[in-house]
Amino acid sequence: MVETDATKIMTALGKRAKAAAAAMRMTNTQHKDAALRLAAAVIRREMTEILAANAMDMKAAQANGLDAALQDRLLLTSDRVDAMAEGLEQVAALPDPVGAIDQLRYRPSGIQVGHMRVPLGVIGIIYESRPNVTADAAALCLKSGNAAILRGGSEAIHSNRAIAACLRRALVDTGLSQDAIQLIDSTDRAMVGALLQSDTFVDVIIPRGGRSLIERVSAESRVPVIKHLDGICHVYVDAAADAAMALKIALNAKTHRYGVCNAMETLLIHRDAAATNTAPIVRAMIDKGVEIRGCERTRELCADLNVGIATDEDWATEYLAPILSVRIVDDIDAAIAHIEAYGSGHTESIVTSDYEAGQRFLREVDSASVMWNASTRFADGFEYGLGAEIGISTDRLHVRGPVGLDGLTTQKWIVLGHGEIRQ
Amino acid sequence: MVETDATKIMTALGKRAKAAAAAMRMTNTQHKDAALRLAAAVIRREMTEILAANAMDMKAAQANGLDAALQDRLLLTSDRVDAMAEGLEQVAALPDPVGAIDQLRYRPSGIQVGHMRVPLGVIGIIYESRPNVTADAAALCLKSGNAAILRGGSEAIHSNRAIAACLRRALVDTGLSQDAIQLIDSTDRAMVGALLQSDTFVDVIIPRGGRSLIERVSAESRVPVIKHLDGICHVYVDAAADAAMALKIALNAKTHRYGVCNAMETLLIHRDAAATNTAPIVRAMIDKGVEIRGCERTRELCADLNVGIATDEDWATEYLAPILSVRIVDDIDAAIAHIEAYGSGHTESIVTSDYEAGQRFLREVDSASVMWNASTRFADGFEYGLGAEIGISTDRLHVRGPVGLDGLTTQKWIVLGHGEIRQ
Repeated sequence: MVETDATKIMTALGKRAKAAAAAMRMTNTQHKDAALRLAAAVIRREMTEILAANAMDMKAAQANGLDAALQDRLLLTSDRVDAMAEGLEQVAALPDPVGAIDQLRYRPSGIQVGHMRVPLGVIGIIYESRPNVTADAAALCLKSGNAAILRGGSEAIHSNRAIAACLRRALVDTGLSQDAIQLIDSTDRAMVGALLQSDTFVDVIIPRGGRSLIERVSAESRVPVIKHLDGICHVYVDAAADAAMALKIALNAKTHRYGVCNAMETLLIHRDAAATNTAPIVRAMIDKGVEIRGCERTRELCADLNVGIATDEDWATEYLAPILSVRIVDDIDAAIAHIEAYGSGHTESIVTSDYEAGQRFLREVDSASVMWNASTRFADGFEYGLGAEIGISTDRLHVRGPVGLDGLTTQKWIVLGHGEIRQ
Repeated sequence: MVETDATKIMTALGKRAKAAAAAMRMTNTQHKDAALRLAAAVIRREMTEILAANAMDMKAAQANGLDAALQDRLLLTSDRVDAMAEGLEQVAALPDPVGAIDQLRYRPSGIQVGHMRVPLGVIGIIYESRPNVTADAAALCLKSGNAAILRGGSEAIHSNRAIAACLRRALVDTGLSQDAIQLIDSTDRAMVGALLQSDTFVDVIIPRGGRSLIERVSAESRVPVIKHLDGICHVYVDAAADAAMALKIALNAKTHRYGVCNAMETLLIHRDAAATNTAPIVRAMIDKGVEIRGCERTRELCADLNVGIATDEDWATEYLAPILSVRIVDDIDAAIAHIEAYGSGHTESIVTSDYEAGQRFLREVDSASVMWNASTRFADGFEYGLGAEIGISTDRLHVRGPVGLDGLTTQKWIVLGHGEIRQ
C-alpha cells in the first residue's frame, strides 16, 4: 500500500477502531443500551445545532444545483431528527445478539460443543446523502458490539459531523470509547480508497447507495463486502393461482412504492392462467399509471390496452419506476429459468394454490428471499422481525437478504470440558 | 481479464460447473447418496488403475527429489485407497443439510418467515500433494449440493486424474452431470490464477495447503476465500486450575500430534499457579522430547531443567514441531492480552475451576474455538460432530473453525403467505 496522507489518516483511525472494537466486544447489554438511549437524548438536546449544520449542507447543495430528490434526502427537519433519536431508542430496545449460545450438546468424548454469537469487529459503512444513516448504522454497529467507521456523502458532511458528535458524546458520557463510532471527517475521495484497502483493521464494508458506489466498492475492496446491486424482483402467477390474490399481490408488489429494491419489476404468468389474469392485472396497473411492456402473447391478450414491446433489456432492468414488464411462460420451469437468467437474486414470489408448484418454487429459486402467496414488498428487515436493517445482501456468503443485528455478528465455537483429552 | 489460454479453459469449465450446480441444487438426498456410494464402489473396482497412476506420480517425485514427508503424503496404498472409498460412504451416511428449514415463525402481518439451507453453488478447491483430498473434497461438495472445481498439486496429477475419473463415472452412471466434479487437468500454474479471477462462475475458493499457497490465494482471489493461515494455539493454566488436569491437557494439546494446526504452541500460566504447575509440566514435556523456550520467570522456576529463552518471535511462531514456548502471566487479563497480541484466532483453552475466570475467557477470547478444561486438539470437524471437515476457517465471516457440510451451504429467506400484501 502506498503511504499517502489518506492511508496515514486511515491507519490511525483503523488502529483506534480496532482497540475500541476489542473493548466493545466485552461491553454488556445494559451499558450499550444506556449509551444508545443517551445518544437519543443528546440528539434531541442538540436539535438546533444539527439543523444549523444541515442548513449549511442544504445551502451548498442548492448552490451546487443538486437535484430535488437528492436535496430531499439530504434535508433534516425537527421531525426527521426526532425520528432519528427514536430509531436509537428502538435499537436500544432490541435483544442483544452477542453472547447467545446455541446448539450446545454433548459429544461422545464428553465435551460439550456449541456456538456463541460474537461481534464481527470493525465495520466500515460507506453511504450517500441521507444523514440519518449516520445514526442508524452507528446504532446497529454499537448494539451488536462492533466499532463503526462511517464515511458519508461529502454533501452531508456538516450534518454527519453534528450527528456523529452527539453519538460520540453519549459514548464518552457513559464511559465507553468514543472511537467505537468514528466519522471520516474529510470529503477527500482518496479516503474511501484507503478504507477499502484497510483489511488489517476493518472486518467488513457495507456500502449503501447507488449502483456506481456499490460497484466501485466491490471492485476495489480488499475487505469483505456485504452488498446488493440490483433488485429485479419477479412475481410468478402459476396455473393454479387464485385470480383475486394474484391481482392483489401483483398490484402491491409493483405500486406500493416504485423506487424500492423489493418492488416487482417483471410479472410472469403461466399460459394456462394468462387468459384469466393478464388483462385484469395489466388494466389495473395502467389505471394506477404504470407503463406496461409485454411479450408478444401479453400484447395479444391485451390488444385493447396500451402495452409496449418488452425487449431482452427490459427483462434485465430494475426500473425503480412505474414501469412493469410482463411475460407469459409455458410452465413453472420456464418461469424459474427466466428468473435464473434475468433475476438479481433479490426476491421472487409465486402465487399458486398448488402444493407441488409452491414447494418446487421455494426449493429451486435461488434468491435471497423466495415467497409463496405474498407480496415481494415484505422483503424487509422490519417485516421479517429483525427489528431494523442495515441493508440488504444479495451475496451468497455470510448473510443473505435483509441484514439486521445478527448479520453484524459471527459465531465462534465454544467447548466446555471436564479435563477431556483427545484419544 | 486478459483472454489467455488459461482463462479460456477456465471460462468453459466455469460455465459447465455453473450449469451442473443449478442441477445439483435440485438433486434430492437419495440421488446424491447413491452417487457417493457408487463412487466408493468404482474406486474399489479401479484400485489397480489408481495405484498404477499413483506409481507414475511417485516415480516422478523420486526423480525430482521430492522430500520424504511429501512423498509419504503423495503415496497411495491399497489401504489408503480403501480408506478413501470408505470416506465417500461415510459422507453418504451424513444427514443432508440442503432444504432444511428453521425458525419459521408467524409475523404480525400474517406471513410466516424462516430460513432454508441451500448450496453455495460452485466451490473451487486448491490443494497440494495428498490425492485423497480429490475424493474427500468432491464428496463434501456433492453431498451439500454444490459443484466442485478441483485443482490438485501438479505432483499428484496422475493420481488425481484417476480418482476424479472414478467419481465422474459414478455421477454419469447415477444420471447426474459429470460436470458437478471437474478436475483442472493441467499443471499450468496460470490455471490457478484464472480460477481465482472467476468470480462470475465460482462462489467460494477453499485453499488447503501450506502458508505460501494460502497467502497467494488470499492475495490474488477475486472470489471469496474460506481459509486458515496459522494455528498458534494457547493453553492458559489459571490460578484456580487443577494441577493434574492442567498437566494432562497441556501434554495432550502439545504432544498428541506435533504437525497439526490445533496443537498448542504456547503455554500461559497464572503466576499464582506457576510454582505448582510450571516445573511438572515442563519436565513432562522434556521427557516426551519437547524443547522448551520460556520467559524469565519460567526459566527461574525450572532452573534445574533445560529451558531456552523465548523471544518475541517465539510467541508469534507456529512451530508444528516438538517445541513449546512457556510464559508466566500476572493474571487472566495478561493471558487474554497475550493471546490477542500473538494468537492466530484458531483455538485457545483455559484450565480452571473458577466460574468467573472460565466465563470471562469464553466470552472475551476472540478465536474460532474457545475451550474450557479441554485439549485444543478437539478443534476438529469429527470431534465437533460435523461428520467430516473440508478445512478450518480462521476468517470471521460466513464460517469459523472446522468447516463441514453446513459451511458449504448458505441460507435463503422463505416466506409463506396467504395473499398478504404490505400495508
